[in-house]
Amino acid sequence: MSEIVLADLPEDVQADVARTRQVVSDLHAELPRWGVVVWTAGNVSQRVRCAEQIGQDLLVIKPSGVRYDQLGPEKMVVCTLDGTKIVDGTSDKLSPSSDTAAHAYVYAHMPEVGGVVHTHSSYATAWAALRRPIPCVLTMMADEFGGEIPVGPFALIGDDSIGRGIVETLRNSNSPAVLMANHGPFTIGGDAEAAVKAAVMCEEVARTIHLAYQAGTPVPLDPEAVTRLNDRYQHVYGQH
Amino acid sequence: MSEIVLADLPEDVQADVARTRQVVSDLHAELPRWGVVVWTAGNVSQRVRCAEQIGQDLLVIKPSGVRYDQLGPEKMVVCTLDGTKIVDGTSDKLSPSSDTAAHAYVYAHMPEVGGVVHTHSSYATAWAALRRPIPCVLTMMADEFGGEIPVGPFALIGDDSIGRGIVETLRNSNSPAVLMANHGPFTIGGDAEAAVKAAVMCEEVARTIHLAYQAGTPVPLDPEAVTRLNDRYQHVYGQH
Amino acid sequence: MSEIVLADLPEDVQADVARTRQVVSDLHAELPRWGVVVWTAGNVSQRVRCAEQIGQDLLVIKPSGVRYDQLGPEKMVVCTLDGTKIVDGTSDKLSPSSDTAAHAYVYAHMPEVGGVVHTHSSYATAWAALRRPIPCVLTMMADEFGGEIPVGPFALIGDDSIGRGIVETLRNSNSPAVLMANHGPFTIGGDAEAAVKAAVMCEEVARTIHLAYQAGTPVPLDPEAVTRLNDRYQHVYGQH
Amino acid sequence: MSEIVLADLPEDVQADVARTRQVVSDLHAELPRWGVVVWTAGNVSQRVRCAEQIGQDLLVIKPSGVRYDQLGPEKMVVCTLDGTKIVDGTSDKLSPSSDTAAHAYVYAHMPEVGGVVHTHSSYATAWAALRRPIPCVLTMMADEFGGEIPVGPFALIGDDSIGRGIVETLRNSNSPAVLMANHGPFTIGGDAEAAVKAAVMCEEVARTIHLAYQAGTPVPLDPEAVTRLNDRYQHVYGQH
Repeated sequence: MSEIVLADLPEDVQADVARTRQVVSDLHAELPRWGVVVWTAGNVSQRVRCAEQIGQDLLVIKPSGVRYDQLGPEKMVVCTLDGTKIVDGTSDKLSPSSDTAAHAYVYAHMPEVGGVVHTHSSYATAWAALRRPIPCVLTMMADEFGGEIPVGPFALIGDDSIGRGIVETLRNSNSPAVLMANHGPFTIGGDAEAAVKAAVMCEEVARTIHLAYQAGTPVPLDPEAVTRLNDRYQHVYGQH
Repeated sequence: MSEIVLADLPEDVQADVARTRQVVSDLHAELPRWGVVVWTAGNVSQRVRCAEQIGQDLLVIKPSGVRYDQLGPEKMVVCTLDGTKIVDGTSDKLSPSSDTAAHAYVYAHMPEVGGVVHTHSSYATAWAALRRPIPCVLTMMADEFGGEIPVGPFALIGDDSIGRGIVETLRNSNSPAVLMANHGPFTIGGDAEAAVKAAVMCEEVARTIHLAYQAGTPVPLDPEAVTRLNDRYQHVYGQH
Repeated sequence: MSEIVLADLPEDVQADVARTRQVVSDLHAELPRWGVVVWTAGNVSQRVRCAEQIGQDLLVIKPSGVRYDQLGPEKMVVCTLDGTKIVDGTSDKLSPSSDTAAHAYVYAHMPEVGGVVHTHSSYATAWAALRRPIPCVLTMMADEFGGEIPVGPFALIGDDSIGRGIVETLRNSNSPAVLMANHGPFTIGGDAEAAVKAAVMCEEVARTIHLAYQAGTPVPLDPEAVTRLNDRYQHVYGQH
Repeated sequence: MSEIVLADLPEDVQADVARTRQVVSDLHAELPRWGVVVWTAGNVSQRVRCAEQIGQDLLVIKPSGVRYDQLGPEKMVVCTLDGTKIVDGTSDKLSPSSDTAAHAYVYAHMPEVGGVVHTHSSYATAWAALRRPIPCVLTMMADEFGGEIPVGPFALIGDDSIGRGIVETLRNSNSPAVLMANHGPFTIGGDAEAAVKAAVMCEEVARTIHLAYQAGTPVPLDPEAVTRLNDRYQHVYGQH
């Protein structure tokens, strides 16, 4: 595939990319705000839906190893869904996040997904180190996750095994979050904001349920109640 | 009941609503400041005492799913005590918090209550997942809660069962906080600020007493001491 | 004793009081910054050494129930060492902290103490709920506390029993911190800043050592090493 | 050795010192931001590579006992690698950090090290109190630390025993962090920023793995996977 240059793309696609870079840059500030990352250890991406115009979608993601307070829309990196960086004019000296291949695999294989987030948030990652799914014992967890948060396989960075592990696990689950074994959570959503929300809520339920198990055994939720809560939340909560 | 329009209400009621919207908007900033919420997972409301002027009280509450840093008085939603939104001119496209029915039920059935807060703060919600009341082993807990913080029934959103569970539990308790089973704390107060204070203090005692039980068994307080501390605190503490 | 009016005191005493009110007001911002308080649940005071000029020292302390972001030097309350408020012209409608009697008792009975702080910080208060002293297993604890942090008696607010408990416990200890049973830490220092530092360090060692005991049994420090570290720290650390 | 005066050094060395003082001052703000210090309990230093020009390298470090919000480049202290303060014109009344001897020993004995950080961050220090290395059970830990984080000997401040303990432990390890027994972590890096990153990541993995062990036994990583992850991370991650 020959190199893609942002300035050569149709104007509406360029505008979409610009909007997405602003959104993705801004959302990175939510990660330290809610305590789900330290230093540079987490990243947000969002899909640009431009397959009709240019024959393929793009994704916008954090540059690798840059601290959150040094980000800005012009530093967000634009890639194709096979993880190749395009020439965008402002971030050309920056490498994309080392997790780009995993994000790209998810977009390529789950067309409904518009946003992906990866963190190593402490409590969720502790469950991941134990390779233990988080049981659904809270109404807020039924709302957001529709059941347990599942564990994905142990996979090493460097090929598509992380991406495959995420996709295979989430396809068999209601949950927008997966705990990759000995690694940490990946979350998905209709857009990047929804995926960030899932990352923040994943850590919150991981913490609360960890604390409950330290003191006893939480009362499980009835599966029918979980279904009712999840249906209602997905269709009624928020502004429509 | 026909639709209520804010602009048609008596001027003093309009002024009261405006003041209350500012107070409720400002108090939402206290929730992330003290770590009792993440993302949009908590809400504050306050009663507008206007039954003499218009035949019923109103309540002001957070819009559903809006992030704390995007709030403002003009986005606060005004409802009747059966949970119906009134036309207020600025928040008309916003839905009230999905917990509005529970807040409204409390105001309708506990006339002395002027403020209600709901969070899913981590430690308090861990006690709620265990359906275990928080025992009164701290002087600050005797001061603020007058005894243990009780657990309310498991209740699903969608009818008045959450509201009923809150009211029935708090009527039999000194505590301004109740831990709804597998859900989280609701707190009440003479106004919204008092209810926010109770929400923050509820998490603080939930955390401290959880930590104590992780390491041993705290020495219980003598019930007479609890009563003396609570009486004194409710009548002497603060500015009068 | 007849009422004391600030404006009637010698000019140098008035200047000293003004400086002290600024210091005490500013230091209250350190309590939420380091996570040792929530809402209004902690207070700082400092002695004004004016016995030579007016026959007695004074103390400056937080007003009761006022939130930390609403403080300022003009709201700091000035009291005699028997806890009586003096007329200061700007805080006259404010009551002093409900813990003023305890602070005042310490100043009256420990002439070397220039600052007192009280918090209910979570980990320190968990140790207090267990009535268990914090063992000295860290070099930073040897530095700052010179040994274990002792537990004081259970005492109810309302007379001088809290103040007496603090003084009697600290007189028999190297530590500038005491954990009052089922209540929380009080700390002392040469001035208010030193007492705030002790409050912050007390929570830090309470947390660290709690965590260590959750996972095993920390190796105790040799008493001679504790003495050497404490001597060195008290005489060498910081700017002289 | 006669006293060194900054103003007498070659201009390029003076410029290097000035740049380094800015960097070291700024990086201290990262310590409270990521929750690895309280009050004044942690310090950052960086080497100035000027042996070619003046026959020896220098180091820049925090002044002792000064609070993080009161720092600035002009207060950073410049020392030789035997820990002697040089005359720099602006910090001459300030003493260097009481940990300067340990930092200096590391620079003198590990020529590849350009930055050193010391904290007492809670979770890492809890492992240090147990004298228990942190096992490598997370991919992020393999990335950053290349294996377990080792424990160094118990050593008292006052001679070079802390510095020796750090150097001897790190020479036998892939890890840029060492947990000094009953004391806390020291970290190293190619520059001060890398050492700060290691300090922040050290606390993060200490916390996550502590939480995992509270709930069960984490699945260990295969040593070959650790090596592959570490190699890749050290050569591919970030901007090159």
